[in-house]
Amino acid sequence: MKTAPGKRGPKPKPDTRANLVEAGLRIIHSAGYAATGIQSIVDAAGIPKGSFYTYFDSKEAFGAEVIAEYSKRGQGKLRHFLCDSEKTPLTRLKAFFEDRIEAFGTANYARGCLMGNFSAEAADHSVQIREQLVKEFKAWSQIFESCISEAQGQGEISRQFSAGLLANFIFNSWEGALLRMRVENSAAPLREFMKLVFEKVIQ
Amino acid sequence: MKTAPGKRGPKPKPDTRANLVEAGLRIIHSAGYAATGIQSIVDAAGIPKGSFYTYFDSKEAFGAEVIAEYSKRGQGKLRHFLCDSEKTPLTRLKAFFEDRIEAFGTANYARGCLMGNFSAEAADHSVQIREQLVKEFKAWSQIFESCISEAQGQGEISRQFSAGLLANFIFNSWEGALLRMRVENSAAPLREFMKLVFEKVIQ
Repeated sequence: MKTAPGKRGPKPKPDTRANLVEAGLRIIHSAGYAATGIQSIVDAAGIPKGSFYTYFDSKEAFGAEVIAEYSKRGQGKLRHFLCDSEKTPLTRLKAFFEDRIEAFGTANYARGCLMGNFSAEAADHSVQIREQLVKEFKAWSQIFESCISEAQGQGEISRQFSAGLLANFIFNSWEGALLRMRVENSAAPLREFMKLVFEKVIQ
Repeated sequence: MKTAPGKRGPKPKPDTRANLVEAGLRIIHSAGYAATGIQSIVDAAGIPKGSFYTYFDSKEAFGAEVIAEYSKRGQGKLRHFLCDSEKTPLTRLKAFFEDRIEAFGTANYARGCLMGNFSAEAADHSVQIREQLVKEFKAWSQIFESCISEAQGQGEISRQFSAGLLANFIFNSWEGALLRMRVENSAAPLREFMKLVFEKVIQ
């Protein structure tokens, strides 16, 4: 299966495409990108392997779309917490991370962040995947930045550093804490993150 | 190649074993663990594939040994910087990260930390690899902790948080900054790490 059949084959159906991305999201998040063969994706989506290339030019293009879908859903969750006007911006920020810590606990501290995983596995090897990651990380950082900026405006977070700098540092530190969480198979690295970020970094 | 030939084959030679680990280190660090086949390792080391299993029970066992070797070399570098008694402990800590930032620049911000990469790729899937990572991350954290503790003793780093907590947080945040460095293909996330860690976290 070295040669992609290109754009031949059946007419693309939107639901088949969505099913492929859904299967990819689940399988790649659990097994990793390199470890996931296209065969396992098409098997899970119940379509013949050749049809994969009706929808995607390459495994890389598929990977980029899986990242985009993961990021879209995650941003939905992030906005749900960070734009909740019934709470103060700092309280929202804490609530988001607390929710994530609980969710990772339920998932036995496995899988981590799909964007972080792709960064480790594929950012060096695929321009398409790297550029998708640049775009998605930036989008997440901006949502954090906006909430931090609001908290600075209300005096809840120190203005010593710009909201953009704090957003990047906190988001990147979270990604690192998630790696260590998987190694330790424990919430401890996430708790340490919470302590330092909320009792020091933003003070 | 589903069945490992076990312990048959030629008598193990220490240099062949070291050559395999050396090849594994180079190839896995660059291509990733799942993407690296045993064939490419034995080809690079110039031995027949069957002989691989004279030295290692499995790809996992090999992966764990590659992690151990990477960590050993890295710890050597870390100790070289953090135990340099001609500088104050805080200056040593900064010098270590500055040296790493320069080295990653030379490597075009690719590859990152092999231990971080294994955490993302394989910590969920292999107990042997996860346990090796637990051990190595702990060893690194302890070297950081010892230097931070010394700096606290000399009043260079605040005692607000324990040296162990600071060491874990700083090390994990560094791992996260390395992921983002690869995405951005830039030192910017490492510079942001330096700014927040040295101008805030340890103050």
